[in-house]
Amino acid sequence: MSTISPLRDFVADFTRLYDRGLSPAAIQANGANLLRRLVRHDDWLPEPFTRPNPARYSQYLLHCDPLERFSVVSFVWGAGQETPLHDHRVWGLIGMLRGRESETQFARDPDGTFHAIETTFLEPGQVASLTPGVNDYHLVANALPDRTSISIHVYGDNIGGVSRATYDVATGTEKTFISGYSSDEVPNLWDRSRRAEAA
Amino acid sequence: MSTISPLRDFVADFTRLYDRGLSPAAIQANGANLLRRLVRHDDWLPEPFTRPNPARYSQYLLHCDPLERFSVVSFVWGAGQETPLHDHRVWGLIGMLRGRESETQFARDPDGTFHAIETTFLEPGQVASLTPGVNDYHLVANALPDRTSISIHVYGDNIGGVSRATYDVATGTEKTFISGYSSDEVPNLWDRSRRAEAA
Ligand SMILES: [Fe+3]
Ligand SMILES: [Fe+3]
Ligand SMILES: [Mg+2]
Repeated sequence: MSTISPLRDFVADFTRLYDRGLSPAAIQANGANLLRRLVRHDDWLPEPFTRPNPARYSQYLLHCDPLERFSVVSFVWGAGQETPLHDHRVWGLIGMLRGRESETQFARDPDGTFHAIETTFLEPGQVASLTPGVNDYHLVANALPDRTSISIHVYGDNIGGVSRATYDVATGTEKTFISGYSSDEVPNLWDRSRRAEAA
Repeated sequence: MSTISPLRDFVADFTRLYDRGLSPAAIQANGANLLRRLVRHDDWLPEPFTRPNPARYSQYLLHCDPLERFSVVSFVWGAGQETPLHDHRVWGLIGMLRGRESETQFARDPDGTFHAIETTFLEPGQVASLTPGVNDYHLVANALPDRTSISIHVYGDNIGGVSRATYDVATGTEKTFISGYSSDEVPNLWDRSRRAEAA
């Protein structure tokens, strides 16, 4: 049976990392372990947050910390969909849940243009990291030509409020954007009545 | 224009009360002021969380603290709907948003039966308090025979996981229950892209 409890536990455990007074780097490292555990099984994401949109990839908010210290987002890639080259400006984690994703990292040259460094393929259960100043420029795509892929992203802020940029790969031309979210609702993680009744 | 930001600000301000190391009584008192400000205007509750259900009153979760220290619930009363007599076992706040609600408080006699103490009518903008050991037994009803009423409840726990009881008024017979929630989704408070773009 599908159940929301792995996501509820992930959110509670991630929140508690902040109570321990860890550095951002330590939160990201510990958080990567929590995310690896979350994406080990693909049986907890509610169906409304798995739906591809034919027009563009979807970014469904699953949880935002009420103090906006971190956010958890379901990225749903329809067949052939990809992001433009973009940055984040806050730390990020990508946990692969379903399908296959390609991530191409870029470096910026002194003249403002970009060159690709390497492309990695993420398989279900794998986790990748992004860190400003280290590897903050990438282009992400569904690596499957005919199926939906889904990855769970965690960011060190409310990513739906961060002003950041997309870039034209060839010219380096920068365009400011705030990504927002694809849905006006998030999953209710907190109904414990059914499990309690079943127990 | 309707906007979610009053609810977002309420959630953030309420969360910060816990960082100040206040007692539960002080959190409830400060929280009552925050709730009074929230229900001063009825222009922020998203429509899916205002819908009456002909079968019974609805309890839509609007926010649960990720450490389950408090929860915020929209109670939607269809015409003529009411609760059974019940308790809470955690502190509570009721902020009237729309329509009119009647709240009848009860005291329990040594023989386990109940008697009504008083009935109060809540009007939009008003806030009432519940405190275990002081006034934890009540029966709440829509005071309007032909219209929906809505109140915003805050509890000092995830009320969707608290084991508590309903009572037969005449005999005092107790029935354990966990109230749960009427919806599998909660409002997304965190999309700041639209406001930012408008600014
Ligand atoms: Fe990215
Ligand atoms: Fe009640
Ligand atoms: Mg921030």
